[in-house]
Amino acid sequence: MVDKDCIFCKLAGGEIPASSLYEDEKFRIILDANPATKGHALILPKQHYKNIFEIDEETLRDLIVLGKKLAGIMKERLGCDGVNLIQNNGEAAGQTVPHFHLHVIPRYADDGQDILWKPGISDPAVQEELVKKLSF
Amino acid sequence: MVDKDCIFCKLAGGEIPASSLYEDEKFRIILDANPATKGHALILPKQHYKNIFEIDEETLRDLIVLGKKLAGIMKERLGCDGVNLIQNNGEAAGQTVPHFHLHVIPRYADDGQDILWKPGISDPAVQEELVKKLSF
Repeated sequence: MVDKDCIFCKLAGGEIPASSLYEDEKFRIILDANPATKGHALILPKQHYKNIFEIDEETLRDLIVLGKKLAGIMKERLGCDGVNLIQNNGEAAGQTVPHFHLHVIPRYADDGQDILWKPGISDPAVQEELVKKLSF
Repeated sequence: MVDKDCIFCKLAGGEIPASSLYEDEKFRIILDANPATKGHALILPKQHYKNIFEIDEETLRDLIVLGKKLAGIMKERLGCDGVNLIQNNGEAAGQTVPHFHLHVIPRYADDGQDILWKPGISDPAVQEELVKKLSF
């Protein structure tokens, strides 16, 4: 289903023009309007899924293969030094538009971006408790 | 193939003990030893692929479905406010171990992490050139 009030539905569906790199029945890939680096792109499903909790497995499988393909194209055609794939869910995770999207960000040695977290120190007792809680 | 000098091959294969959350024929999920937040986990393929350019599509498809599953478990059992899925390729992208891995990071409103990039301003001429270069 498409959400008529969702900006990413409109971009994915072509209702609003975008810098489009690729389109098929299920997806559109566009350049991010506020790029982290030269070539920063977004893979958008055409259907409206808020996040990874909502998207179905089949669509997710197809999407990640597109992500691999795009990463390879970036490496080959932009000569970037690396690529980040980033998928954020929820405002607390930095998701700004509530329509599932995968960021594919070419990285260059001198691009001035720092997308990493501050590494923590793991407490063995806490980790043990987490293993019990999260095991499946 | 497994790389006998790779720390993530050893962790995935069980040669080095880790805080393991899940294991099947192809993957192991462990807690990150230097967690960004409580519950930060890594999905590791047991075979050695350096990065997204090397991993095969089928393995990648299976891995992302595990990522969705784990994100849902984190939300349910940790009560986190969001989840980041992050996959880095190349030192320039922050990849520290050259064995493909997917970070799954539960996020909490007050976790003190900032994993975002500095947003850029897109130059229409540059974006147009990038569309030509990257279209597929």
